[in-house]
Amino acid sequence: MKTAVADMLGIEYPILAFSHCRDVVAAVTNAGGFGVLGAVAHTPEQLEIDLTWIDEHVGGKPYGVDLLLPQKYEGADQGGLDRDALRQLLPAEQQAFVDDIMARYQVPQLDDEQREAVSRLGGMNVSPKGYEPLLDVAFDHPIKLIASALGPPPAALIERAHAAGVVVAALAGTKEHALRHQEIGVDIIVAQGTEGGGHTGEVATMVLVPEVVDAVAPTPVLAAGGIGNGRQVAAAMALGAQGIWCGSVWLTTEEAETQPVIKEKYLAARSKDTVRSRSITGKPARMLKTKWTEEWERPDGPGPLGMPLQPLLVSEAQARINRAANTPGSGAQELATYFVGQVVGQMNVSKKAGQVVLDMVEEYADVVLRFAEEAAETSA
Amino acid sequence: MKTAVADMLGIEYPILAFSHCRDVVAAVTNAGGFGVLGAVAHTPEQLEIDLTWIDEHVGGKPYGVDLLLPQKYEGADQGGLDRDALRQLLPAEQQAFVDDIMARYQVPQLDDEQREAVSRLGGMNVSPKGYEPLLDVAFDHPIKLIASALGPPPAALIERAHAAGVVVAALAGTKEHALRHQEIGVDIIVAQGTEGGGHTGEVATMVLVPEVVDAVAPTPVLAAGGIGNGRQVAAAMALGAQGIWCGSVWLTTEEAETQPVIKEKYLAARSKDTVRSRSITGKPARMLKTKWTEEWERPDGPGPLGMPLQPLLVSEAQARINRAANTPGSGAQELATYFVGQVVGQMNVSKKAGQVVLDMVEEYADVVLRFAEEAAETSA
Repeated sequence: MKTAVADMLGIEYPILAFSHCRDVVAAVTNAGGFGVLGAVAHTPEQLEIDLTWIDEHVGGKPYGVDLLLPQKYEGADQGGLDRDALRQLLPAEQQAFVDDIMARYQVPQLDDEQREAVSRLGGMNVSPKGYEPLLDVAFDHPIKLIASALGPPPAALIERAHAAGVVVAALAGTKEHALRHQEIGVDIIVAQGTEGGGHTGEVATMVLVPEVVDAVAPTPVLAAGGIGNGRQVAAAMALGAQGIWCGSVWLTTEEAETQPVIKEKYLAARSKDTVRSRSITGKPARMLKTKWTEEWERPDGPGPLGMPLQPLLVSEAQARINRAANTPGSGAQELATYFVGQVVGQMNVSKKAGQVVLDMVEEYADVVLRFAEEAAETSA
Repeated sequence: MKTAVADMLGIEYPILAFSHCRDVVAAVTNAGGFGVLGAVAHTPEQLEIDLTWIDEHVGGKPYGVDLLLPQKYEGADQGGLDRDALRQLLPAEQQAFVDDIMARYQVPQLDDEQREAVSRLGGMNVSPKGYEPLLDVAFDHPIKLIASALGPPPAALIERAHAAGVVVAALAGTKEHALRHQEIGVDIIVAQGTEGGGHTGEVATMVLVPEVVDAVAPTPVLAAGGIGNGRQVAAAMALGAQGIWCGSVWLTTEEAETQPVIKEKYLAARSKDTVRSRSITGKPARMLKTKWTEEWERPDGPGPLGMPLQPLLVSEAQARINRAANTPGSGAQELATYFVGQVVGQMNVSKKAGQVVLDMVEEYADVVLRFAEEAAETSA
């Protein structure tokens, strides 16, 4: 697994782990992989705390930070709107639809203090006003990589990163996105197939990866989407990737701060139990199929809003659901969902994050040996 | 590539090629792979002609036949209905919708003779009344494999096949389908990911193949969906498959009887230009996104019928479109679509079918060598 990406990042295994949880980031980095902290919903204060904690736990080993830098979102032409300005744009129809869901599923209200706490959370920091303060925090730490999980990194960010010796990665769901990333100077393209969790396109990893590899060569490509074990890592490498990027598989690890009811749903879910839905972020993102995603797909419903209006619309409802979801048999339990890819079907046991890395590497090595034996037989 | 499937079928490369075109079937078999003739729309007379032709061209090398054996279809409880009985079930709303599409896109009518020819065609032989005569023809030829591309093969068919030394394969889009196939005695499971052309489920190949391999072991599994080059074959083998099954990649070969306008669309299409649509067969099948698929997705439209009503509803319209589609700038040209998987994005040059097999094998061998070198470096 001595690939260009492993060299570039100074790591043993080019296995990049996306997680919102600092414990996972540190565990993967310490196991020889590379942890990437998803920070889009962090406040700058919380990000400072988390990165300091990571610095204290990885002993100088490399890690990265991930943000969303979409080109298209409500208010983009004004460089982003503040939360109150955005709230003015929420249509009454969608607000009534959310209220109706909450009422029909009997999801308890928050008290004033809880509601206040929800409104203080970072939300989705997708405009420069939102993410610039996060970048300032990130660049004050010894990050080795900055990634855009949505949209092309702005030129200023690429310059700033390169001046600081920081590698820039960007996710791409189509060949066209990958070429655009390459053109603006992105160092590593993450080709993510539709089977991946979170924001994802329509083309599957098996097709997308070789297509992107061929299009952007010699820029290195990581495969993402559908990768959670060593055979899948080997498949990605066979397709021409220089490593892999995965996010779902960490959600059921012991370190993950996944809500218990969601963790249980993940462990029980089949690979066919996910859906691409705009119901949480406003852009298509893969998550568990639940009553929540079903409600938003109703033909008689108003349909979701765009980004960042939809997250603003549903943030309090999501908080209400998550607070109440641990009550067995509750409507909130039925509604509760979260991002995850189709590999959820193979996530059946909770393990340490470091163990997940080692299991991947071991199974990968088995496949390499199997191919080596085939090569030996063929030449014999 | 000496796998269990290669041994079972007596072939050099476990590369199975699904095609409606006898020339492709023979070419792949002659190149060391294994051709499978898709016969669902054949009349028994036409199948007899095609299989005789194949026998004359493969010099005793093995090939197979593929049918659709769905459990659920209109009239299934009566063992299938004849065409006139089915016609009585076509709702006026959908008939008017089809007429409206034809009118708005100015697709010329057929003359009486052409219309008569369309109604004589085999259509979709998905009930026992339809496929039993085809099986009788197939078993009169030295077929080595019978495959069900949709639904579990009936017990009587499995018995008949095994008594005749014929291997039974069945496509599965979920682990559950694969387990059902295994339980009833299917010899080879074809795990087909959502990226595949034609009837396909929602789970991607990268996730589905290892899941099915683990579930049905030691029954051998072929990977299908998203496979059109040697890196993808190697990825499939890394995932644990014993070979691959592919259909799309033959549609642009020199031997394929693909309509010229469709062939041009395939050669120009990007990987994101396909969609799963029920608009032709009544069950979700991946095909080129065109005005036809768009029309059927209109929220104000009646939506497609089930199988086999939808094919009956649209067969004449499809014939009208296909007859007129070669006229540049015509509505028929805009509407024309056909089944294909996401690998259409990499189908950019028309080649001989045998050459496609050899290119796959060569690129596969390159990947095997790359892994062998990695194994040698690691152990050094």
